[in-house]
Amino acid sequence: MSILADLLNTVFERRYRFGLARQDDRPFEDLTADLIGATGEVTGQAVARQLLDRYEGWSDADRLAFFRHLATAMDVQPEAVRAALAAYEEAPGKASYRAFAAAAEPPRQELIRRLNMVPGATHLLVRMRADLLRLGRGEEALMALDLDFRHLFASWFNRGFLVLRPISWESPAAILEKIIAYEAVHAIDSWDDLRRRLQPADRRCFAFFHPAMPDEPLIFVEVALTQGVASSVQALLAEDRTVRPADQADTANFYSISNCQAGLAGISFGNSLIKQVAADLSQALPGLKTFVTLSPMPGFARWLADRELSADGMTETQLRQLGAHYLTRAKRPDGQPLDPVARFHLGNGALVHALNAGADISPKGLGQSHGLMVNYLYDLARVSQNHERFAAAQEVAMSGEVRGLTSAAESALKETTE
Amino acid sequence: MSILADLLNTVFERRYRFGLARQDDRPFEDLTADLIGATGEVTGQAVARQLLDRYEGWSDADRLAFFRHLATAMDVQPEAVRAALAAYEEAPGKASYRAFAAAAEPPRQELIRRLNMVPGATHLLVRMRADLLRLGRGEEALMALDLDFRHLFASWFNRGFLVLRPISWESPAAILEKIIAYEAVHAIDSWDDLRRRLQPADRRCFAFFHPAMPDEPLIFVEVALTQGVASSVQALLAEDRTVRPADQADTANFYSISNCQAGLAGISFGNSLIKQVAADLSQALPGLKTFVTLSPMPGFARWLADRELSADGMTETQLRQLGAHYLTRAKRPDGQPLDPVARFHLGNGALVHALNAGADISPKGLGQSHGLMVNYLYDLARVSQNHERFAAAQEVAMSGEVRGLTSAAESALKETTE
Amino acid sequence: MSILADLLNTVFERRYRFGLARQDDRPFEDLTADLIGATGEVTGQAVARQLLDRYEGWSDADRLAFFRHLATAMDVQPEAVRAALAAYEEAPGKASYRAFAAAAEPPRQELIRRLNMVPGATHLLVRMRADLLRLGRGEEALMALDLDFRHLFASWFNRGFLVLRPISWESPAAILEKIIAYEAVHAIDSWDDLRRRLQPADRRCFAFFHPAMPDEPLIFVEVALTQGVASSVQALLAEDRTVRPADQADTANFYSISNCQAGLAGISFGNSLIKQVAADLSQALPGLKTFVTLSPMPGFARWLADRELSADGMTETQLRQLGAHYLTRAKRPDGQPLDPVARFHLGNGALVHALNAGADISPKGLGQSHGLMVNYLYDLARVSQNHERFAAAQEVAMSGEVRGLTSAAESALKETTE
Amino acid sequence: MSILADLLNTVFERRYRFGLARQDDRPFEDLTADLIGATGEVTGQAVARQLLDRYEGWSDADRLAFFRHLATAMDVQPEAVRAALAAYEEAPGKASYRAFAAAAEPPRQELIRRLNMVPGATHLLVRMRADLLRLGRGEEALMALDLDFRHLFASWFNRGFLVLRPISWESPAAILEKIIAYEAVHAIDSWDDLRRRLQPADRRCFAFFHPAMPDEPLIFVEVALTQGVASSVQALLAEDRTVRPADQADTANFYSISNCQAGLAGISFGNSLIKQVAADLSQALPGLKTFVTLSPMPGFARWLADRELSADGMTETQLRQLGAHYLTRAKRPDGQPLDPVARFHLGNGALVHALNAGADISPKGLGQSHGLMVNYLYDLARVSQNHERFAAAQEVAMSGEVRGLTSAAESALKETTE
Repeated sequence: MSILADLLNTVFERRYRFGLARQDDRPFEDLTADLIGATGEVTGQAVARQLLDRYEGWSDADRLAFFRHLATAMDVQPEAVRAALAAYEEAPGKASYRAFAAAAEPPRQELIRRLNMVPGATHLLVRMRADLLRLGRGEEALMALDLDFRHLFASWFNRGFLVLRPISWESPAAILEKIIAYEAVHAIDSWDDLRRRLQPADRRCFAFFHPAMPDEPLIFVEVALTQGVASSVQALLAEDRTVRPADQADTANFYSISNCQAGLAGISFGNSLIKQVAADLSQALPGLKTFVTLSPMPGFARWLADRELSADGMTETQLRQLGAHYLTRAKRPDGQPLDPVARFHLGNGALVHALNAGADISPKGLGQSHGLMVNYLYDLARVSQNHERFAAAQEVAMSGEVRGLTSAAESALKETTE
Repeated sequence: MSILADLLNTVFERRYRFGLARQDDRPFEDLTADLIGATGEVTGQAVARQLLDRYEGWSDADRLAFFRHLATAMDVQPEAVRAALAAYEEAPGKASYRAFAAAAEPPRQELIRRLNMVPGATHLLVRMRADLLRLGRGEEALMALDLDFRHLFASWFNRGFLVLRPISWESPAAILEKIIAYEAVHAIDSWDDLRRRLQPADRRCFAFFHPAMPDEPLIFVEVALTQGVASSVQALLAEDRTVRPADQADTANFYSISNCQAGLAGISFGNSLIKQVAADLSQALPGLKTFVTLSPMPGFARWLADRELSADGMTETQLRQLGAHYLTRAKRPDGQPLDPVARFHLGNGALVHALNAGADISPKGLGQSHGLMVNYLYDLARVSQNHERFAAAQEVAMSGEVRGLTSAAESALKETTE
Repeated sequence: MSILADLLNTVFERRYRFGLARQDDRPFEDLTADLIGATGEVTGQAVARQLLDRYEGWSDADRLAFFRHLATAMDVQPEAVRAALAAYEEAPGKASYRAFAAAAEPPRQELIRRLNMVPGATHLLVRMRADLLRLGRGEEALMALDLDFRHLFASWFNRGFLVLRPISWESPAAILEKIIAYEAVHAIDSWDDLRRRLQPADRRCFAFFHPAMPDEPLIFVEVALTQGVASSVQALLAEDRTVRPADQADTANFYSISNCQAGLAGISFGNSLIKQVAADLSQALPGLKTFVTLSPMPGFARWLADRELSADGMTETQLRQLGAHYLTRAKRPDGQPLDPVARFHLGNGALVHALNAGADISPKGLGQSHGLMVNYLYDLARVSQNHERFAAAQEVAMSGEVRGLTSAAESALKETTE
Repeated sequence: MSILADLLNTVFERRYRFGLARQDDRPFEDLTADLIGATGEVTGQAVARQLLDRYEGWSDADRLAFFRHLATAMDVQPEAVRAALAAYEEAPGKASYRAFAAAAEPPRQELIRRLNMVPGATHLLVRMRADLLRLGRGEEALMALDLDFRHLFASWFNRGFLVLRPISWESPAAILEKIIAYEAVHAIDSWDDLRRRLQPADRRCFAFFHPAMPDEPLIFVEVALTQGVASSVQALLAEDRTVRPADQADTANFYSISNCQAGLAGISFGNSLIKQVAADLSQALPGLKTFVTLSPMPGFARWLADRELSADGMTETQLRQLGAHYLTRAKRPDGQPLDPVARFHLGNGALVHALNAGADISPKGLGQSHGLMVNYLYDLARVSQNHERFAAAQEVAMSGEVRGLTSAAESALKETTE
């Protein structure tokens, strides 16, 4: 039970203030220099707190000035790197490697690490990066700075440090209100709506958390347990559906995945989340045999329009054929699938399992894909192989049925263009 | 009830095995190449587990071979660094910085991060570094590799991620047996002895933990609450002492600090631990006004002997005078105090508060310092200032009493040498 | 931390089904006989579950029949009591006392205890009593049966078994929705409204729970922390008020107390709750010096009307004078205060501290008391003495100010009636 | 985080003192009268604490005086009972029933309930009863008083209120030291010995707790998971045995059950414990098919001796035959089995499964049963039926093998006596 005590303490610590931060009137440039200086490791907590407190009070303009300072004054010094590298080449060893490593890493990385010495700072640093991404867009030096944040966050938010937690109607309201706020795919419009996603016996929700930000979900997935693969999101969410006991379900449908932290952009959790949840669910409910998504096809309608193909008058089958073609054949110049959701799931090693017409008849669903949705299948025994073929040869895995749809689409498109 | 379920999951995860690691007969060099390769981020967990499982089964010779592979085949490539650096200098920007950062970091760092994708891997990596320190001693390339471990660990075991937990007689036996095993200063010889250190109203114990290693203390400190500063460790630990309620104490004596993880050598927790515990205790027990250690002087007897000074026949006062001189004036060539414990506490910003004769009359205490012990005082209002003066000018802070002892010692030594 | 494991297990147990309850077609009268019979203690869990499951499926008429069976067939047997009593008088001792005790307690008490052998049954039994109170109203035999439920519940819900828990925005949604549902004094109309009662730094909420019903609050109190005693509920709840840090408050205002369980009617928790919360708050926030309620006067308007006194045209002072008179002098035939809220707080040992005009200008507040509200003061050093004088001599404790108002009212009323 | 805070509060409460108990110099007789008096429900907590504090300081003689006061001055008043009973008979109804119930229950029961209003009092009351059982032995009036304690405890320690918790090497040391102290069957002689009972993969331990005494196990059972039924306790506990993963076991052997609280004598938990643990284990480890005890036969050697049968020279088969006869045929005058352990398990609905010679070769095992031990089988599908036949007709359930041994014993004994 030890870990319970941990978290208790964590909570305590997060509220803890290491004495009052004495007011320090020096410019922030002096504080940053202090913090990465020789004594920063011992006395740095007070300076770090001072900087974080100031940052919270700053305007966007102030923050931008701060970022520019980090980007320029705390960048690597090419001369120093070159010298240290030469010394290391000449006499490789502990001392020369230490000198090289110190020179090759910009001081702003150490600054970010030392800011993180303050209990509770991690979440603030994540929000700091969100500001940087927002304010620094298009400014090359700031985007380079962002790579340092991202590099550190990738290390700190390593899969091995994340904790998977079920989200339920028993979860703290303070966390649930964030689920409402962050749901990106199918909006949750009230607490009653939320309860309907969490409480019924055929619903599940899971999120990744980081121990240093225990109140902040990083990413969450909503799951519906069904008999057979779901082919309509409206049917899935219908209030008057029959709710079956979880142990009668054979399929887990991942119908919504939402990232929560803008400041963690580019650090991918979705792949791990889906596989972990699939593995956990299959252990808890041995009756579950199939793990699929019910996913949107956000670029399909535009793609059709670009090709001057009108969905009006198409049969459902024709729509599904074109959808299959779009997902599996339409590519970006770099060879990746055109559809962003397809890029994500195929990159994870899923396969295109089925195309469903009339699957999302909301205005959004009709607008972006004429109501078409797709199931991606996660077959845990085959995801590695699928992923490798996709990564190496951009080979898209698909079911026999989807292969048939794709072939039919080929013929039809050939006719059209002939 | 959500938090409970959460934590269950945490525990579960640590034991969780993501499917069975299929046997993979390729040499480990192929696996490491795979893991840092393009697809490693998605499919890497299985490869990482494979490598970790193999590592656990290896002999020291196998492990050494593995470390040498990391040290040589996965080191930085000077040519590549140089080229990337030149490109960045020429056209600084996001892309060129990304390329430089990738080149300047040896691939073995990414390897270690990806090994950590496996839930529960962190502790194994810490033990891996302990092996490296043990097996690689004196081998420059391996000590350079160690710097990469240390660099990553300093980031992962950042103060902001650590959790302070009280250790008490209510703690899990699985953790308490580690306290017994790791106590380095005044050995705990049985469970009864342990109970006497934890259960009485005038005793406290605290440890730092990392959330990814919740069963493993990183460092712990034992505290005795007293009226007045303790001047004898035997009196402090006497079973027949009068135990006073904690709220009657005015002094917290830190009488033992022990590091627990050989694999975290060089990553200093002691400074934070003492200050955090002092801050927490002063909040919980407002009557506490003084925070001191009761510390050994491990090099004192040898220093006396080196100077051909005999303790035989010295008065207690003479011994204390020489002790004060030893702590505050005896220096290494680099200007640091000769005494290692003094280096630690003075570096943290403590001051030399009092010298106590007859303070440790155990064979060890008599042998290393003729029974002399020292109290270092942590005055939270002054530690920053003390630390800065010490760091900048090697100025040793001390109490008036100790200053007097030191002056007297000066005179006496002058006479002796004249 | 052991207790955490407890609750974990408790949760588990509550969902646990001890095998499937085999269908048993015998009439319920046979099952009740079985359950209190010789073998009931060992095999009773299955029978108890059978009965509880049936009860849940029953209509009101069925339940009434069940209650009547308990009331009549499982009542005490006067002849048996008389005989056992005589035997005990003649030869007092263990055996004769055991026989008397067995005879003097109606078998339905043992039945209720054995029904409670099923994990999770306690809440169902509480709801069973709520049914009994609703269906049995006015039926003497059922009201006698109710005394047995109440007797057992008073023993089971003894203060020593209750757990005080803070309710906050961190509490599980499943509990918070019950707070919304049960709030009886100032309705909570949405989750946003609830958040405003829980989350600000100057708000607190506490509830009593029973370990066997961990998801069900028994009673809760809402507290507002202020500088000075609150004199208007609208000001207290105003969204645009200035929220001060809790440690700046000198007064805790208990502005709403709600019982949650109809089935625990007559088992008083409010007295303990207020005193415990006051004691806890004064320890956590030493700045708090005053603990008062801001309470309605539900019978005031009617009392005025009965005396043919019109509030129209009264000054605020006249209204407050009459309010003071009403609270302290208007009595029921049994000598108890006429006002039910006054009975509760004066019975607890509180004193009438202040009368506030315009304190509740909601339609309900205007309707029941012309906007007048009262502060009852809980002075922990004097509650025992106040209570005893009130209990012994119906002496109402009041502040000097209220005494003045009362005297003025006497004079005015005398004039009016002269 | 709410649950954690909650529980903190729980812990806090148990240690909480509701102000300082003012010294009250009146004789305890006055305090007891006060406590059950009219105002006791509101102001009683202070009086109750006063009484409990005094009790803790009393000598055995003082305690005896206290018990005698309860036994005599707070007994039922026959005249009052008789009058109330007559009134109830004449005019049954709520009021008359209330009066009867009040008269028929001795005031000391209410006194005990009100003592329990103090948080943390429950454990003290349990220890008070242990004193009563020790000091009052043979004194009829005190044994009658004990029936009141027992009646209340049976209600408070109802199965529905108990919590089953696993005991493991992760449990708090404060609880584990109680397991060492209370183990009654096969003594645990050190912490190492305890670790060997808890930590290996093939060991389990479970205890019942009451939420008001969360640090005090009420009863615990030690379990060994094996392939096949265990037939020797020394083999079971052998340190050099092969430890198999739990999921390879098909049998759970309950090899030790210990009651922990002398003050809960006569309130049986063992029956529920075994069945609950069997049910939980079979859910967690579906491979478990057989749930047996490995039990001593404490009266066997004496029984043989009484019959002037010498074990010397008997074959193992003869010993097992006689053992089977002893367990299934040797009866007390009231028809119950002579062997106390057999009474317990057969009363729970277990059956006699196998007799094992050489099963306990410790001095104790050889002394009490010539090394013979017995497996009782808990077949959850048949325990109710077994129990009922045993309760109704004292029919002992046994396996075919044991039936064979018994028959052989009959013949042999007949020969012997012929």
